[in-house]
Amino acid sequence: MALIDQPVDTLDTPTLILDLDALEHNLTRMADSARKAGVQLRPHAKAHKSAEIARLQIALGAVGVCCQKLSEAEAMVQAGVDDVLVTYPIVGPHKMNRLAGLARHATVAAIADNPDQVAAFGRVAREHGVTLTLLVDVYPGGMRGGVDPGVPALRLSQLIAGTPGLAFGGLQAYNGAAQHVRDYGQRRQAFESYADAIRDTRDRILNSGLPCASITGSGTGTFAWEAQSGVFTELQPGSYVFMDADYALNQERDADVDGFRHSLFVLTTVVHSARAGFVLVDAGVKALNTDPAQAWVWGQPDLLYTPTGDEQGRIDVPRGRALPALGQQLLLVPGHCDPTVNLHDEMVAVRASRVQAVWPVTARGAMT
Amino acid sequence: MALIDQPVDTLDTPTLILDLDALEHNLTRMADSARKAGVQLRPHAKAHKSAEIARLQIALGAVGVCCQKLSEAEAMVQAGVDDVLVTYPIVGPHKMNRLAGLARHATVAAIADNPDQVAAFGRVAREHGVTLTLLVDVYPGGMRGGVDPGVPALRLSQLIAGTPGLAFGGLQAYNGAAQHVRDYGQRRQAFESYADAIRDTRDRILNSGLPCASITGSGTGTFAWEAQSGVFTELQPGSYVFMDADYALNQERDADVDGFRHSLFVLTTVVHSARAGFVLVDAGVKALNTDPAQAWVWGQPDLLYTPTGDEQGRIDVPRGRALPALGQQLLLVPGHCDPTVNLHDEMVAVRASRVQAVWPVTARGAMT
Repeated sequence: MALIDQPVDTLDTPTLILDLDALEHNLTRMADSARKAGVQLRPHAKAHKSAEIARLQIALGAVGVCCQKLSEAEAMVQAGVDDVLVTYPIVGPHKMNRLAGLARHATVAAIADNPDQVAAFGRVAREHGVTLTLLVDVYPGGMRGGVDPGVPALRLSQLIAGTPGLAFGGLQAYNGAAQHVRDYGQRRQAFESYADAIRDTRDRILNSGLPCASITGSGTGTFAWEAQSGVFTELQPGSYVFMDADYALNQERDADVDGFRHSLFVLTTVVHSARAGFVLVDAGVKALNTDPAQAWVWGQPDLLYTPTGDEQGRIDVPRGRALPALGQQLLLVPGHCDPTVNLHDEMVAVRASRVQAVWPVTARGAMT
Repeated sequence: MALIDQPVDTLDTPTLILDLDALEHNLTRMADSARKAGVQLRPHAKAHKSAEIARLQIALGAVGVCCQKLSEAEAMVQAGVDDVLVTYPIVGPHKMNRLAGLARHATVAAIADNPDQVAAFGRVAREHGVTLTLLVDVYPGGMRGGVDPGVPALRLSQLIAGTPGLAFGGLQAYNGAAQHVRDYGQRRQAFESYADAIRDTRDRILNSGLPCASITGSGTGTFAWEAQSGVFTELQPGSYVFMDADYALNQERDADVDGFRHSLFVLTTVVHSARAGFVLVDAGVKALNTDPAQAWVWGQPDLLYTPTGDEQGRIDVPRGRALPALGQQLLLVPGHCDPTVNLHDEMVAVRASRVQAVWPVTARGAMT
């Protein structure tokens, strides 16, 4: 258990570390970008799952948060966040009833991509005597969800607007596949073709006489472009808060997403240092994500981390370099922040190498 | 929240399902195997992290449990388990102090693979006025921990036996790399060469005049061989409780590890079913392990599951087969049980398609 003012190098490991200076820098930079571009910011809470960070984002001007799962949204509302968009399909009567209940306590919106789902939302809204706001989820290509842009999206928008109990809120337009395209030109192209389709869909909706209040999407990999597009009214980035190793590979390649700092680390301890060429550390698959995106050893680029077991990682040490000693601590930059945070019950928030606070991961494991 | 007697097909998803008939079959089969072979069973709790399952294992004759992390051991002792071996290196004064505290409340043992660690354990034991039992962790090859078998292991055993405050408990001999070798002959060979090294080490220890109370190791992939080896006195299998998809690949290939049933599932719901060739389900990286071992769709071998996001998986559907419908539920067999269980706060224990109990994952996230 971390204590306030405890020096970081005396913490038990493995533990999740949040660098508050870097965090505040990232939060401010994104808030400023949105403000200057004249778009709303609704950061995605699936990255941090933290009520504390959500409150900081809102204090800096965010209109609310996005959540991926309804249980995340419930946790955020319970923690005082009063405006939540659930960006993942809500399917089945049990979840729809929960959404209707949540709508009595906060401003909530959900997404839909098919007429059966719209009809079911309408029935539940009328049973509960609430109005549910739905955004049309627009297909970005690939093996993903969403309704096709253009006429199909227009028709679904009209269906929502014409269903008693429902309000049409606009378009959910998240181009997930584009975020991690390494090549700047290819990423830009992936952004533009989807943005064109969204612009066309919006124009069809407006021409039909419907308002289209919100066009919301974007991520850390493309936010600067959506902000300037003249189409998007709201940005949903999540990872910028932490800037994980995977997004940092984008950052190395273009200026539009640079300027964010690594704020999230896993502190780990060397538990075996006796054979040439490697040491073992106490952070493995249960402490760090195991997506293809690999963690880095912070400040020591010649050391290569590989998760080798549930509770163990190997660090390869180049020939001729001294092995890190038994008991030595190292900081790892997670490869992918979202699933890493979700493994931990709390984040140890530090400043100037001392613990300032211990924040619960409010919505940890909230998956329904 | 699952309710007692609720039909499984009305549960909210994704959720972890435990089939009690299959669980009890697996627990009994392993307990019988150990009893017939005349060896102790000390199942590894890192797989299930569940006090309920540990109690069932002990009721069937297990002498206690293994834990991988000290915090897991603390959770098990707190839940009433009174004999725990921590099979992962305990490094640093903070953790050693915790171990000494735990030793006042239960029979605990730890492992060591180097003299500095032994000396540190000795100092902590004397400061706390307890006796700490240490087993020598014997190197199984590869980029793993442990001290070399033979003379180095003998010397470390003698050092432990001669250190005030410490008791020499025997050998920790887990051949992790052998467990998942698919080829029967190669797996058998990997088992035998390590077993020979352990036998030689034991003989050196006994010839030196030291007792060697416990020789403990093995896993679900090789347990039948350790049981019959005449060397091992104790088995540490974990995954047999659940029999995940990865171990099932071994099971298909040889009879020694067959006879276990899949007892662990993730119940998931189709959230998008609108395009040819695939549907999307609500279980992804945050609900199932993402080791290379992939999950299966239970009972529907023509459907192929791939995790495609934090909260989403894709199921590829062969041409000509009807798509699973929006809202339909499917059961997934996790690829790797340990990290899957660790993502969930509870397991829904079912029998005859109804909920019998909801068991907390007692040591979820216990990683220090």
